[in-house]
Amino acid sequence: MSTTSSTGVTAPQGFRAAGTTAGLKASGKPDLALVVNDGPRHDAAVVLTSNRVQAAPVKWTRQALSDGRCDAVVLNSGGANACTGAPGFVDTHTTAEAVAEALGVGAADVAVCSTGLIGERLPMVELLAGVSAAATALDGSAAEGGADAATAIMTTDTVSKQAVAHGPQGSGWTVGGMAKGAGMLAPGLATMLVVLTTDAVAEPAALDAALRAATRVTFDRVDSDGCMSTNDTVLLLSSGASGVTPTAEELREAVTAVCADLARQLVADAEGASHDIAVEVVGAASEDEAVTVARAVTRSNLFKAAIFGNDPNWGRVLAAVGTTDAAFDPDALDVSFNGVQVCRAGGVGDPREGVDLSGREVRIVVDLHAGPATATVWTNDLTHDYVHENSAYSS
Amino acid sequence: MSTTSSTGVTAPQGFRAAGTTAGLKASGKPDLALVVNDGPRHDAAVVLTSNRVQAAPVKWTRQALSDGRCDAVVLNSGGANACTGAPGFVDTHTTAEAVAEALGVGAADVAVCSTGLIGERLPMVELLAGVSAAATALDGSAAEGGADAATAIMTTDTVSKQAVAHGPQGSGWTVGGMAKGAGMLAPGLATMLVVLTTDAVAEPAALDAALRAATRVTFDRVDSDGCMSTNDTVLLLSSGASGVTPTAEELREAVTAVCADLARQLVADAEGASHDIAVEVVGAASEDEAVTVARAVTRSNLFKAAIFGNDPNWGRVLAAVGTTDAAFDPDALDVSFNGVQVCRAGGVGDPREGVDLSGREVRIVVDLHAGPATATVWTNDLTHDYVHENSAYSS
Repeated sequence: MSTTSSTGVTAPQGFRAAGTTAGLKASGKPDLALVVNDGPRHDAAVVLTSNRVQAAPVKWTRQALSDGRCDAVVLNSGGANACTGAPGFVDTHTTAEAVAEALGVGAADVAVCSTGLIGERLPMVELLAGVSAAATALDGSAAEGGADAATAIMTTDTVSKQAVAHGPQGSGWTVGGMAKGAGMLAPGLATMLVVLTTDAVAEPAALDAALRAATRVTFDRVDSDGCMSTNDTVLLLSSGASGVTPTAEELREAVTAVCADLARQLVADAEGASHDIAVEVVGAASEDEAVTVARAVTRSNLFKAAIFGNDPNWGRVLAAVGTTDAAFDPDALDVSFNGVQVCRAGGVGDPREGVDLSGREVRIVVDLHAGPATATVWTNDLTHDYVHENSAYSS
Repeated sequence: MSTTSSTGVTAPQGFRAAGTTAGLKASGKPDLALVVNDGPRHDAAVVLTSNRVQAAPVKWTRQALSDGRCDAVVLNSGGANACTGAPGFVDTHTTAEAVAEALGVGAADVAVCSTGLIGERLPMVELLAGVSAAATALDGSAAEGGADAATAIMTTDTVSKQAVAHGPQGSGWTVGGMAKGAGMLAPGLATMLVVLTTDAVAEPAALDAALRAATRVTFDRVDSDGCMSTNDTVLLLSSGASGVTPTAEELREAVTAVCADLARQLVADAEGASHDIAVEVVGAASEDEAVTVARAVTRSNLFKAAIFGNDPNWGRVLAAVGTTDAAFDPDALDVSFNGVQVCRAGGVGDPREGVDLSGREVRIVVDLHAGPATATVWTNDLTHDYVHENSAYSS
């Protein structure tokens, strides 16, 4: 997992990171990560789950980020600390205090993220010892620290996820990021923890605008299994260490590039999946309607099971499209699977035998013939392995 | 499948039925059914799929039933005749004409229902020969005819579904019914064809009111796999042969009893399922909100996979509840699995080890503590067999 050059959260100047094994997971794998912003600036923005059942760390981080400042992020896998009541919130607070003390910063400037099983308290003795160990490990090479942190936040992920994007040629600033995903992947965000860093100079409001614009068209359009998590968190931290202030558009583009890269990596590593499916809706009356239709298709278990079976079953696509109230004429719908237009004008099109679904990536295009708008939502197929991974043990 | 006493559509006086093998299915199993109302009255009502992509027989039947009269219903499995364009509609019309001619009634008084693969034309030569054979078979015993019809509409159903309910003691009228379900089972109706018959005297408006009241709390609350069909049809035919006119309430109660019985049979025979799951929401501010919350839980693949694994994973219930905008305080939510309150006040309750999920039927109760309303939605678990049945071949 480790690389010699910085490709994740430590790619921008002004950031250190570490990953360690606190002992929260039965597997004994790394489970605690720290990301520290050494400045000179400490601007930050966050997007949190829209689920109304929110984990303690989500509640804490909303509060901590409300002033637009964040000095460090501590993340643990091996336990979501969700539905743990007031004692769970105290655990999160205690964790932030321990990080603050180890780094010499204020606890109110420490974001906390947790992922794992809902409804279990975290083993705090192990977790706090892990915080100390991670703080000590921060002094290693920046590149290894970023990769170690990305590894420590994995749950059922099989590979760690990092991404980087640079500002315009010669501008001298960078956006880096890491993510974990795997299960409970659905909109409003996908189930995931994401930390993005940049050395660009940007006020919290500028970071917030860039982050919301980016997540809206990336993470919010991943719908692996229709299940929304209680812990989703996307943080964007700015150190300002490059001394460069990008335009709003430049910042949005770079942040979006990193989010899109990480979102694609999440889909590629979704629990039990054997296909990554892009459902692209074109000819919609509005972007919202394009998203609504695409999401209806990505939520159809029958469609997803058909893709698992390499079956270009376009009738299941039309059945899903028909559940929406988007503008379209049922007799005008076109659907293609990997470039073969198997449904034309709401009826039989080219022979389904011409469709090759043997590859990992599948592209479905639905043309509503109702306007100029378009949107793509990514999902995965519904497989035996998905059922197995989510039934064989609590996660 | 056949019985000696009438338990289905031929239980009320004034109805004959038949089932035959036209050769529409590769399996060579029965695939064509006729239900005939011999009167003296021919009042009828229908509820059709709310999917905007509607099969030709759905469009035909809406038109045919618009005057509140129906003399006969012809149903075929082995092909949905959906997304087949104008030629598909001509096929439906031709089928109704053939039934009308064989029975000496008007084609506009013949309802048509089809179920099977979307996007394929029906083999009309075989189908029309089947109509003749079924019309000839109508002269057999009423009880066998009803059972044969129930068998002929099966697709991936493993057992045929019939039900009967009687008016108040001594009233002398009856409601009977048959159904097919299995896959694509979701609200607005489940994926299914249902024919209900009664010998009560009732105007079309009275039948319509009773039918809508019944489907709202029965079939509309079955959500096996979240997928809405293009062909769903529930017909209620009245012969008036008993000469008795029930009150609106009596009629509603009897029709609801038959619908509830058939809905429960659909859940018990859903594709690949190993558990039937009742999600009961209590303490809701309104019945609509209770349904919304229950449906969010029944739509969660993670919850459904956990039940397959006999895992009382209440965190996945809360994560689903939290996606809704129903009135509730996340810190007040209670959840029980088969009577064990594993989640109390939004946090850990009694030990999950006390929950026994080994039986077929599972009862989840979610208490929102936000009002007096309640609703139950039925679903099934997400299993290897569901994935297998829906990926291994087109259906």
